[in-house]
Amino acid sequence: MAIVASEILTRLHSIYSAEDLIVNEDELIVYECDGYVVEKKMPEIVVFPTTAEQVVETVRLCNEFDLPFVPRGAGTSLSGGTLAVGGGVMICLTRMRQILEINERDRYAIVEPGLVNVHLTQNLKGSGFHYAPDPSSQGACTLGGNVATNSGGPHTLKYGVTVNHVLGVEFVSPTGELIQLGGPLGELNGYDLTGLFVGSEGTFGVVTKIWVRLTRDPAAYRTMLGIFETVSDATEAISGIIGAGIIPAALEMMDQGIVGALEDAFHFGFPLDAGAVLLIEVDGLDVAVDLEKQKIIELCNQHGAREVRSADTPAERQLLWKCRKQAFGAIGRLAPSYCTQDGVVPRTKLPEILDFIIQTQKEFGIRIVNVFHAGDGNIHPILLFDERDADQVKKVIAAGDAILSKCIELGGSVTGEHGIGVEKINFMDKLFTADDVNVMTDIRSAFNPKGNCSPHKILPTAGACGMEHIERDKPGRQAAM
Amino acid sequence: MAIVASEILTRLHSIYSAEDLIVNEDELIVYECDGYVVEKKMPEIVVFPTTAEQVVETVRLCNEFDLPFVPRGAGTSLSGGTLAVGGGVMICLTRMRQILEINERDRYAIVEPGLVNVHLTQNLKGSGFHYAPDPSSQGACTLGGNVATNSGGPHTLKYGVTVNHVLGVEFVSPTGELIQLGGPLGELNGYDLTGLFVGSEGTFGVVTKIWVRLTRDPAAYRTMLGIFETVSDATEAISGIIGAGIIPAALEMMDQGIVGALEDAFHFGFPLDAGAVLLIEVDGLDVAVDLEKQKIIELCNQHGAREVRSADTPAERQLLWKCRKQAFGAIGRLAPSYCTQDGVVPRTKLPEILDFIIQTQKEFGIRIVNVFHAGDGNIHPILLFDERDADQVKKVIAAGDAILSKCIELGGSVTGEHGIGVEKINFMDKLFTADDVNVMTDIRSAFNPKGNCSPHKILPTAGACGMEHIERDKPGRQAAM
Repeated sequence: MAIVASEILTRLHSIYSAEDLIVNEDELIVYECDGYVVEKKMPEIVVFPTTAEQVVETVRLCNEFDLPFVPRGAGTSLSGGTLAVGGGVMICLTRMRQILEINERDRYAIVEPGLVNVHLTQNLKGSGFHYAPDPSSQGACTLGGNVATNSGGPHTLKYGVTVNHVLGVEFVSPTGELIQLGGPLGELNGYDLTGLFVGSEGTFGVVTKIWVRLTRDPAAYRTMLGIFETVSDATEAISGIIGAGIIPAALEMMDQGIVGALEDAFHFGFPLDAGAVLLIEVDGLDVAVDLEKQKIIELCNQHGAREVRSADTPAERQLLWKCRKQAFGAIGRLAPSYCTQDGVVPRTKLPEILDFIIQTQKEFGIRIVNVFHAGDGNIHPILLFDERDADQVKKVIAAGDAILSKCIELGGSVTGEHGIGVEKINFMDKLFTADDVNVMTDIRSAFNPKGNCSPHKILPTAGACGMEHIERDKPGRQAAM
Repeated sequence: MAIVASEILTRLHSIYSAEDLIVNEDELIVYECDGYVVEKKMPEIVVFPTTAEQVVETVRLCNEFDLPFVPRGAGTSLSGGTLAVGGGVMICLTRMRQILEINERDRYAIVEPGLVNVHLTQNLKGSGFHYAPDPSSQGACTLGGNVATNSGGPHTLKYGVTVNHVLGVEFVSPTGELIQLGGPLGELNGYDLTGLFVGSEGTFGVVTKIWVRLTRDPAAYRTMLGIFETVSDATEAISGIIGAGIIPAALEMMDQGIVGALEDAFHFGFPLDAGAVLLIEVDGLDVAVDLEKQKIIELCNQHGAREVRSADTPAERQLLWKCRKQAFGAIGRLAPSYCTQDGVVPRTKLPEILDFIIQTQKEFGIRIVNVFHAGDGNIHPILLFDERDADQVKKVIAAGDAILSKCIELGGSVTGEHGIGVEKINFMDKLFTADDVNVMTDIRSAFNPKGNCSPHKILPTAGACGMEHIERDKPGRQAAM
């Protein structure tokens, strides 16, 4: 596409300054993949708009030159959500990162999509408010990316996922119109298109502005660490806590493998011989959380806890959360490569899926450690391997596939919060009937008639866009991983 | 359409028994309107399916004979959501009212669409669970209708509206396919079409099964009645309560006019000379609600409350809620006819819109009383008139229009929970840009390509279906009322 390239480049140079445009291969390589490192595809051009108007012009240009385009935030997607399938133009939104308004009285903020998640909460410090969804990657991931994948996080057990906190979005449609859905009051009239947009993984357009709900800071926290001999005891305790009508702000499980890695990294004092550790947090009024804490300790003990510790100071609480949020970093100590899976089962099926994961380890000879949002039934088995060993790679793909298929069999599904992306696109046929997939495809076409905006995400894009390409380039490293 | 009618009737008789099919005009007249009594249109045929298969066959038949069709539950819509615009077949779902499953462990129930809202909660009595959304009409309205309009209710301030409690729907698409969206775990993968479906006012198809979330009963309630000299003091108290970080389970305001009518009807002991009464409920753990109650009383007093009473026994609480939920019935004592409006403003704009309503009363010489979900900024001014007086009818229409336009001006919108229906369809152009409306129309077409399913609801249906008809029949009584 050399001639087109030179033409489109000239046009792009009239929209972007030189430092907001990348075409050199050695710079483009940074954008060849995201947190899902298994599949790679370089975009042909990366642009860094600073205004919505630039995004409009870019999208119109892509349509004129019949090029695919894909939005990208920080690139922390774990499912290849920002992979430039088919090449084309990547619209990187990290330079649109302003907070445009904070309205404490009506409890919303207006932000640009490239704002890093935690920066919003940091800006709210002292106001008594925060932004509730807190993905583990919140120190890096952008709010635009959170909108695309409907991100969760440890505190979404009580506070809900991104869609519960997004009141409106402004976006550039795949055909180049600037459209607003919702606003400070949310989407009250007509179809809930804001709700539909959140989680559409870039297939409905490029977000340029977001109205988010602000959440009041809780008056008090109580954070506990329940230490159990076995994973099964820990999951029974979870059912006991939720069954007692307590909704913890967070309820996270870590198994022995991950606890070992965390202890090596952070020296928190985790017991290395315990089968599982539960990180449990309640929030609310002081008296209420004291009562809930007492009840939770009782329930943990009833279900065979060896010990229940408390994080009694803010510093201890912060360290505990640092451990949990940086768990994935600590895994680097366990193996050269790892693949984080993301499955969901009804909470009552947690013991069953965890048993299955143990079996899977044995069957495939792959080590798997677990850290996950137990309260939601959202598992994150982490498959450890060495990517230089082709045999191990194959086994990891097969083991991940087996675990996800088991999730479906147990009435669950293949992603809780990481999205379908390109990674799990082949599972859609297993999850949905042909009629269901047709409805989804029709809806995508209503927004994205040519399929050139984020092609081959969530749903296959007909004919187009070189996914075959990727599979051909990397035999044996496919979507299931 | 006599010939077609005789053909289609024969075919319908092969699907339905005689008692599940209405064609006589004196029986059809019952279905000529819903709670929005201003516009009327008789369906040509009403059917009462008892199975999803019957719905599929009916929809296919309507497509074959090119007839419009519209689903209906209990007909409590306040916006003409079930009006048979263009005649055709009405699919009345009140005989599909079974509870198919209650799963307390995984906290969901599966119900048929014709189940009356309160019957689900009654069935759950003693289990420790209930179904949270509680529209004022909950003793009559159906869950299918709640899904169609995304119904709210007093307790949605804390617990959210219908969409937050619907995990999945099975529906017959406008082209006659039986489709399932979501399920016991909700819609985890792909687009959130369940969320999109809720609130689509019948334009995406006919619901045949619903998966709903069960909510744990709170451990304790505290219910208070704050009595204020003026509406403005009451609204300031509301801002104070919410600003203090308390989220009441319900926060309802009633003005002097409505309090008088309620007192006449129920003899609760409401003070007849107070400017406004706030009904405030908190729920949660005993100690927590005691603290919140104390704080709320303080805040009410700080904002000039004359008195704050408590409903101290379950019987008192129940009577208070009965008063609130039957407020609309009590209005019959005030005037021969009334029109309940439904607007939304940012909560901080409540004093402004209430002042405007007082002005509007004076300007148009129409009495208006107010009862509404103050915590949400969702107003329900009730315009009193005599429908036999054409001049009053005109004034009511104009006054309602003025109030809704003011809501838009204040950054709000024209419906909080009653839906657009046919009533407010002309406001869509004021609320949305042409591009926004185009996106909505495209989305509707993806589900409803011919526009024959619930025509002329939410969005105008091109050319078709005799809405002009209705306007011609009733000059001067139009959509704004």
